[in-house]
Amino acid sequence: MMFSKGEYMERLQQVKIEMEQRGLDALFISDPANMNYLTGYDGWSFYVPQMVVVFLEEEEPYWFGRAQDVNGARATSWLSPCHLLSYGDEYVHSKVKHPMDVLSIWVNQHKKKIKRAGVEMEAYYFSPRALKCLESNCDWITFVDAHLLVNEVRMIKSDREIMYMKKAGKIAELAMQAGCDAVKEGARVCDVAAAISHAQLSGTADFGGDYPAIVPLLPAGVLTYAPHITWTDEKIKSGDPVIIELAGCYGRYHAPLARTITAGKPGKVFKNLSTAVIEGIETVLDQVKPGLKCEEVEQMWQDTIARHGYCKDSRIGYSIGVNYPPDWGEHTASLRPGDQTILKPNMTFHLIPGIWLEELGVEISESFVVTTNGCELLSDFPRYSFL
Amino acid sequence: MMFSKGEYMERLQQVKIEMEQRGLDALFISDPANMNYLTGYDGWSFYVPQMVVVFLEEEEPYWFGRAQDVNGARATSWLSPCHLLSYGDEYVHSKVKHPMDVLSIWVNQHKKKIKRAGVEMEAYYFSPRALKCLESNCDWITFVDAHLLVNEVRMIKSDREIMYMKKAGKIAELAMQAGCDAVKEGARVCDVAAAISHAQLSGTADFGGDYPAIVPLLPAGVLTYAPHITWTDEKIKSGDPVIIELAGCYGRYHAPLARTITAGKPGKVFKNLSTAVIEGIETVLDQVKPGLKCEEVEQMWQDTIARHGYCKDSRIGYSIGVNYPPDWGEHTASLRPGDQTILKPNMTFHLIPGIWLEELGVEISESFVVTTNGCELLSDFPRYSFL
Repeated sequence: MMFSKGEYMERLQQVKIEMEQRGLDALFISDPANMNYLTGYDGWSFYVPQMVVVFLEEEEPYWFGRAQDVNGARATSWLSPCHLLSYGDEYVHSKVKHPMDVLSIWVNQHKKKIKRAGVEMEAYYFSPRALKCLESNCDWITFVDAHLLVNEVRMIKSDREIMYMKKAGKIAELAMQAGCDAVKEGARVCDVAAAISHAQLSGTADFGGDYPAIVPLLPAGVLTYAPHITWTDEKIKSGDPVIIELAGCYGRYHAPLARTITAGKPGKVFKNLSTAVIEGIETVLDQVKPGLKCEEVEQMWQDTIARHGYCKDSRIGYSIGVNYPPDWGEHTASLRPGDQTILKPNMTFHLIPGIWLEELGVEISESFVVTTNGCELLSDFPRYSFL
Repeated sequence: MMFSKGEYMERLQQVKIEMEQRGLDALFISDPANMNYLTGYDGWSFYVPQMVVVFLEEEEPYWFGRAQDVNGARATSWLSPCHLLSYGDEYVHSKVKHPMDVLSIWVNQHKKKIKRAGVEMEAYYFSPRALKCLESNCDWITFVDAHLLVNEVRMIKSDREIMYMKKAGKIAELAMQAGCDAVKEGARVCDVAAAISHAQLSGTADFGGDYPAIVPLLPAGVLTYAPHITWTDEKIKSGDPVIIELAGCYGRYHAPLARTITAGKPGKVFKNLSTAVIEGIETVLDQVKPGLKCEEVEQMWQDTIARHGYCKDSRIGYSIGVNYPPDWGEHTASLRPGDQTILKPNMTFHLIPGIWLEELGVEISESFVVTTNGCELLSDFPRYSFL
C-alpha cells in the first residue's frame, strides 16, 4: 500500500465532512483517481464500469467492479474482502445488461435507508446510461451532482504525497533528458517518443516509474501550432522546433514538464517567443506564495508577456496530483482569470504557459508545490537549451 | 491523412443509412475512435468535451472542440475549415460553464429543423452533465441512445484498415520479443514495461508505432491472478510467471497480443494451464470461418479446456480496430455465450482466453482477421516459450 490506513481514513473523514455539509448520505465515485485516493485501488480496469461507494454512516467504503478485478482490489486496496462487490463478465460491454443493475440491486437489498446520494456527473467514466440505471432502479434516492467533491479534498497534499510527486519530478527530469538527447536532425519523432517512454517507465535505479495519464506530446515543426498532437514517424528537420510535454509518474502521482527545443539552430521568432515565455514563468515562480489567488498568478504572467507584445487567451496552469488517463489535471483550480482559489501550502500546480502562433508554438512548463513562503519546483531542468 | 476522402465518405454513407433507419436527423458522436473513423481527427484532446456531429441532410460533418485544438483538426481531418467549431478556454474544466452550451447555441441558431438526434449514452467521454446540457438547451430535440451505431459500422474493415492492423501486428511481435527478452530473474518489472513501450512506439525501420489504447499489462508472480494490474518495480523471482499483454498500434489501429512466460523453469500448474489454454486457442483458430456465430466460437474453446478440467466464465475475445484509451476493444461483438453476431470476412478479433486460478493466471492471445474461408493471424509469435 502506498499510504498508511490512517492516511486513507483521514481522507475519508474529510470527504464525509463535505458529504454532511451537502446533505449526502452516500457518494458514488467513478473517477479512478478518486477511487485510488480513498481506497488505494489501482488497476487498468476503468474501461469497464466500476465505483467506490462511501456511506456517511459506515467507516469503510465499498469497491464495486468486474469479478475479474476483485483480486486486483484485494492486492492494492485496504478494504476488507466483504467490501469488494462485483459483477459477472456477462455484464461487460453488453447491449442488454448494465453493471449498475447489479449495484442497484445490492443497494436495494442492503441500503434502503439512503435518501440522497452524490454522483460525479462530469467524470470520464460515468456514463449517462449508468446514471439512468441507478436512478431508475433506486428511485427512492435523490441523485445529485457531487462532481469534484473528492477532487477538492485532494488539492492539499500530505507530506507523503509531496514525496511521491518529487520522485515523479525526478523521473520527469530523466525523461526530458532522454527526449532532448533524442531530438536530432534526421531522427524520427516516434523514436523520440520511444526514448521518453522508456525513461518514464524505467524510472531511477532506486524506484521505477508508473505510466503517466497522458502519453508524450511531441508536435514537431509546423505541427507545434497544434498542442495535442502526439507524434508522427516523420524525420525532424534542421531548425525544426519540437515541443516535448511529458510527466514523470510515481505511484499514480504526476510531475508534468514541458520544454520546446530545436534540432540545430533556432530561428528568430522561436527565440523571441521562448524568451517571453521563460520571462513569464520566472516572474510567476518568483512571486507565487500562499494567500495569492489563482487569477492573480495568471495576471502576473499576462503583464510580463504583454511587454513582449504577446497575449494568450487560455489558462496557464492547473492543480495536479494522483491521476489516470486521459488527464493528469485535477480539474479543480486553474490559473486563469476568474479563478478565486487561494493558494495554500502543499497545493501543487502545473504551470504551462504555452503560446501558439500561426507558424509555431512554444510550451515551457514547471510543476511546483506551494510552500509556506513561496514555491518549490518538482523538477530541476534547464529552460534555456537554445541559448 | 490515413485514408482517402472517398473511404471516409463511404463510412459516412453507411452511418447515414443506419441513422435513416433509426429516424435520426442528427448524430452527436463523442467516442474519439468514432470521431477519428469519420473525420480522421487525431489528438490527445479527449480529456475535454469534443464531438463530431453528423447531419443526415448534409454531406460533411462538423468537428466541435476546444479552440486550442482547431489546428490539430486542420492538420489531421479532411473537414473544411468552416466545419470546425470551437469553444474558448474559459469553458475547460469550469465549474459554471460547459462546452456543450456553446454547441447548443450553435445548434439553436443554425439547425433548428433537427427533431431527433442520437447520442452515445455509454461512451467514455460523454458525461451525464453534457447530455443534460444538450437536452435543456435544445429542448425541441428528442435525444435517443445511439451508442455503438458507428462502432457497428466499424466492425468490417476495409483492405487498407487490415493493412494498418497487419503493421500493428508486426509492431506487436517486436514489442513482445522485447518483453520476453527483458523478463529475467532479478529484472524489475518496470524495466520490462520500459523495453516493451520503447518497441511499441519506435515500431519498425519502415514505419513508427503509435501509442496503444492500453499500457502494457504485466502482472508478475502471485499478481498474475489479477489481470489488470499494470506493473511494479519489484524484481522478478526465479520461476515467477509473468503475463505480458500488449498491443502494437499503427495509426490508431491495434493488434493486441498476450503471452505468459516464466523467468527460469516453470512449475507444473503453470505448464498444465498453459497447455490447456494453447490447445483451446488452436482449436478455435483451426475452425474460425465466416458464417459461425460468436457464441459458437466460444463453445469450441469451452469444450477443449473442459477436457483438461478447466472452465472459464468470462468472455474469450472481442472485436478490435481503431481506438483510443482506455480500451482497444470495439464494444460490439464478444466471443461469449449469447452473442449471435455472425462472423464475416474482414472482421477482426482479439482472442484472449485467459484462465486465472487462485495462485496464478495464464493469458495467451492472438489477434486475427476473418478471411473468406478461415482466419489469418495479425502477428506471428511462438506460443510455446516454456516447452
